[in-house]
Amino acid sequence: MKPFNLTAAVLVVALVAGAYLFGARSSSRMAALGDASTVAQARSLTAAEVTAAAQTFVPPGKRDEYMMFASGGHSGQVLAIGLPSMRMLKVIAVFSPESWQGYGYGADWGNQILDEGHNGGPALTWGDTHHPALSETGGEYDGRWLYINDRANGRIAMIDLRDFRVKQILQVPNIQTSHGGVFATPNTDYVHVSSKIPMVWDGGFAPLEQYKERYRGASAWLAIDKTTGRIDLARSFQIELPPYSQDLADAGKLVSDGWGFINSFNTEMATGGNMEGKPAIEAGASAKDFDFLHIINWKKAEEVVKAGKFEMKNGVKVISLKTAIAEGILYFAPEPRSPHGVDVAPNGQYIVVAGKLDPHTTVYSIDKIKKAIADKNFEGTDPFGVPILKFDAVVAGRVAVGNGPLHTQFDNQGYAYTSLFVESAVAKWSLGEPYFKGDQAFKLVDKVPVHYNIGHLATAEGDTIRPAGKYLVALNKWSVDRFPTVGPLHPQNLQLVDLNASKMKVIYDMPVPNAEPHYAQIIRMDKIKAWDVYPMGTDVRTMEKSAYVTERGKERVERKGNTLTVWMTAMRSSFRPDIIRVKKGDTVVLHITNTEKQKDATHGFAIPQYNIQMSIDPGETVTVRFVANKAGAFSHYCTEFCSALHLEMQGWILVEP
Amino acid sequence: MKPFNLTAAVLVVALVAGAYLFGARSSSRMAALGDASTVAQARSLTAAEVTAAAQTFVPPGKRDEYMMFASGGHSGQVLAIGLPSMRMLKVIAVFSPESWQGYGYGADWGNQILDEGHNGGPALTWGDTHHPALSETGGEYDGRWLYINDRANGRIAMIDLRDFRVKQILQVPNIQTSHGGVFATPNTDYVHVSSKIPMVWDGGFAPLEQYKERYRGASAWLAIDKTTGRIDLARSFQIELPPYSQDLADAGKLVSDGWGFINSFNTEMATGGNMEGKPAIEAGASAKDFDFLHIINWKKAEEVVKAGKFEMKNGVKVISLKTAIAEGILYFAPEPRSPHGVDVAPNGQYIVVAGKLDPHTTVYSIDKIKKAIADKNFEGTDPFGVPILKFDAVVAGRVAVGNGPLHTQFDNQGYAYTSLFVESAVAKWSLGEPYFKGDQAFKLVDKVPVHYNIGHLATAEGDTIRPAGKYLVALNKWSVDRFPTVGPLHPQNLQLVDLNASKMKVIYDMPVPNAEPHYAQIIRMDKIKAWDVYPMGTDVRTMEKSAYVTERGKERVERKGNTLTVWMTAMRSSFRPDIIRVKKGDTVVLHITNTEKQKDATHGFAIPQYNIQMSIDPGETVTVRFVANKAGAFSHYCTEFCSALHLEMQGWILVEP
Repeated sequence: MKPFNLTAAVLVVALVAGAYLFGARSSSRMAALGDASTVAQARSLTAAEVTAAAQTFVPPGKRDEYMMFASGGHSGQVLAIGLPSMRMLKVIAVFSPESWQGYGYGADWGNQILDEGHNGGPALTWGDTHHPALSETGGEYDGRWLYINDRANGRIAMIDLRDFRVKQILQVPNIQTSHGGVFATPNTDYVHVSSKIPMVWDGGFAPLEQYKERYRGASAWLAIDKTTGRIDLARSFQIELPPYSQDLADAGKLVSDGWGFINSFNTEMATGGNMEGKPAIEAGASAKDFDFLHIINWKKAEEVVKAGKFEMKNGVKVISLKTAIAEGILYFAPEPRSPHGVDVAPNGQYIVVAGKLDPHTTVYSIDKIKKAIADKNFEGTDPFGVPILKFDAVVAGRVAVGNGPLHTQFDNQGYAYTSLFVESAVAKWSLGEPYFKGDQAFKLVDKVPVHYNIGHLATAEGDTIRPAGKYLVALNKWSVDRFPTVGPLHPQNLQLVDLNASKMKVIYDMPVPNAEPHYAQIIRMDKIKAWDVYPMGTDVRTMEKSAYVTERGKERVERKGNTLTVWMTAMRSSFRPDIIRVKKGDTVVLHITNTEKQKDATHGFAIPQYNIQMSIDPGETVTVRFVANKAGAFSHYCTEFCSALHLEMQGWILVEP
Repeated sequence: MKPFNLTAAVLVVALVAGAYLFGARSSSRMAALGDASTVAQARSLTAAEVTAAAQTFVPPGKRDEYMMFASGGHSGQVLAIGLPSMRMLKVIAVFSPESWQGYGYGADWGNQILDEGHNGGPALTWGDTHHPALSETGGEYDGRWLYINDRANGRIAMIDLRDFRVKQILQVPNIQTSHGGVFATPNTDYVHVSSKIPMVWDGGFAPLEQYKERYRGASAWLAIDKTTGRIDLARSFQIELPPYSQDLADAGKLVSDGWGFINSFNTEMATGGNMEGKPAIEAGASAKDFDFLHIINWKKAEEVVKAGKFEMKNGVKVISLKTAIAEGILYFAPEPRSPHGVDVAPNGQYIVVAGKLDPHTTVYSIDKIKKAIADKNFEGTDPFGVPILKFDAVVAGRVAVGNGPLHTQFDNQGYAYTSLFVESAVAKWSLGEPYFKGDQAFKLVDKVPVHYNIGHLATAEGDTIRPAGKYLVALNKWSVDRFPTVGPLHPQNLQLVDLNASKMKVIYDMPVPNAEPHYAQIIRMDKIKAWDVYPMGTDVRTMEKSAYVTERGKERVERKGNTLTVWMTAMRSSFRPDIIRVKKGDTVVLHITNTEKQKDATHGFAIPQYNIQMSIDPGETVTVRFVANKAGAFSHYCTEFCSALHLEMQGWILVEP
């Protein structure tokens, strides 16, 4: 594409002609367009680039059409991003404390959630968020909750989309690390997460020599409370799995509702030892041509649990591998080579698997799977006795998409989009019936380069029964030369791909300034019904009215022994009381209510040298407890610029020696 | 402005005419422009909006022209943002641990810096970054280092722009909280930071009743090592100040080189007590019509220090208030009302002060200040004996800019731009001679609304002797209705303002997803000479070669008593060794070198349940030490997606009971 300058010259002439034809009424608009062409010329934009600008630009004051929730990878966060502008709207702190949100820096709500997340074990102050799952109703995103897993520590978190704050972190029992989650069943009865690396099944330590005997994986089906969105461990269950690396997963929908699918690799059970005379895991785990797609009948598992055929293990019901086999809950199907992504098509019929060392996607059919199970069309069992369905009996098609295929997403036209890590591209191909028939089915139709090393990709409403098409986001792992150098740790690059024409087109490069978004889901903006302000006195932990809500003018201070309790308010531009007087060694309890009712009137509350920082939104009531173990006069203050006299919104914690 | 659709229709006709006139050669470009107009029509963009899109759009693969470094406020971070695209390029962790950067999660470099930052006191794991200062040579940004203060805890940090990582955090002695910094002198001999709220000057505790007697502020001049950029406390000095709230500051340049300026408020010395029968500070500190601009002759202070007229106080040389007065280091000038910003114009002649309760900017002249000092043109002294220069003797002009003026920046045409918090606008006005003369000087010439509650603002190269004009960024504190609601904690809104035409124009809204950028500086992108990869074996703390660098193939394991030391390497797609075998209670020391030489080939290293997460860039050598106090088989892994076999880049920490 050549620079814009010649075209701009043409445009200017054309505009003059146009203005002449249409007379004076149009001339001011024409002049404005003349401005645009002048700018484009000055900035050496091509015509295609001006088109891309118009496609992605959300003018000042206007809104994006979609919101993407991307995991933040090893930042432990979730990122909310507007589409098509690719502007980041919010970083949501989940597994890592975040001072500007007052999360993990003293305020009770956050400290409690973070503490529960390590369940009495060593403090965990980060996580590796991987796969976000929006809650669904009838197979469509409903905009209520978002779930995310911690790949590092086998945890799961729930975010309430009323206030974009995390409400729960659960250390999932019997799972050390997780990957195959979170995915939600079509009515969010359950969210699923499975183990990434098997762990010693009876707890404690076992040598790697006993890997096959004593290590196990698990598939966890975590029950969701329909009112609060919280995970209810009492109603949840797990299924014991062989010690493979269970990888990505997806839930069935429509014709495959009631089923779950998990990829696996390292069915070789390699454990490394590259300085002990053994191959590295990358080699040991890539020896076989096939691993096993795990096919789980979770509705049957529910019945088996109801029938009492489980054991309790660290607080959760577990169906043993033996029972899972005996009851027809677990089947395997061969999947070629080094499988990674598994994605269920919108109609629920097709389950698409990509093997990262195989240049094809492999498309399984749920009808064929069901028939093969009914017919006991097995090629034998794995070493643990799990029946293996015959490959040819369950596969509907294979598509040569290119090198290093990983993940697949879908549009509203029956096309699938597969990320190609090695090739740094996205492949577009057609699904089978009812979308495409005969020669037209399972056919590569387009490919677009992306920059570079794409991992996941996401389409608008792409994991639902009704994808929107329109946009695809490529979550590229390397950016290399796409952005100015900001040191040896480079940004990732999320690229927006236009799906509106038959040819895909990259129209925007978004550098990711924080962390490595792993996966994302994209929801229609109008489905998000977030609160602007809290109802007065909200305890954000419970979303109910706090017992400590305090009205402006009704503040009070109460001393009992060595504990000083203060019912405080914050309002532009003072805290009441502004002076807190204690003795060294006292326990201080501050219940602070932000009595503002106006949108955006957030106040902060920080105490120097005490490492305390809270962010208190309008209507929120929050509590901080600390021991005043350092004497001095500490000038606490509001950390969120709130008014012209914000700097005067300060006070004193006076700790007498 | 009306929607684009009619105009688009006009454009299409015009384009046909244009294509007809210019024949077939232009038709494909025309078709592309037709695409742009069709898109604009479909998205209801106005012509002005298309122009703004063309002004701000940086096409996929192309680069921004400027980089803005914005403080992250109570996130404790610094944000690097590209202009004009307003894409965030990097979040730089400074005062708060950041797991994705491996900062504060086990790696020695970050843990050491964070530990030094609390200097033996209670651990401080966040900060409130306020005013970034780029290092300067000859009064221009040189792209080498960036300094930032922690408003909460009186600290200062240095970031090396070779790798965009923090290298030093200093707890500045005798300062509890800071605001008036960081600013750099024209050759970065010093960076300045002053106290925000006075502290008990002899340390320990003093009742507020002794505020006037025992509380003091300080102006700190921190000497910079010309090679490393590190702060050298031994060569630094401080000046004792009265217990006012010292607010913002700026360094003189050219004719005012050698001078520093600090605003103050609360010369009333109000200490609050709104539930003890006294006025809140917001009222108590706003009683007087004038506070004091602090005028500091730092070159004279340097001489006074050389002459030995200081006392050591907590490791730093301090010039007492008495000496500062006696030696002619410190003068005051009255400044109206509730002053906030103080900014020195590019030629160094004008010092612009904005009083947030006064609708004017007040412009002081350094020539007049010098003359008034020489003439001893004082109106008396403050209660501490500091001479007060006569207002009329030092003021060159006053400009009625609007309500709630805060901060001022400059362009290359002699114009100043002042943020108006209360009015939510930016005022453009003219400076005096030599820029503008007579009636044309000190005159309001334009105003543009911003959205909403603007705090600071920044122009391209705006704090240098040679501003660029072109762009201004409004750092708005509230966004209210500008973005989709993401819960009661709303984004801030950075707005890009076009300065190229005589009328200012807002052309982009950038939601800030993390924290509250407080102030920013904007540097020409080509001045940033960051490294792509590290020289092999770099210790990022020192930027020198690490003693622990290990070549691939030369890894080794050494046990001494209860300490196991491992010289490890990381390369796609394995760690060597991949298995670490220890006994419970052992101390484990891992020296890990990322032996990659390719740009962007960063590896992570995480250990589940041990809260360890490191990010190791190509060429970097890093060390982590921990006590293996939990038995089990922990599957460590690479946290940065590095290759198609990234998932296989894992291993084991086997901790036998």
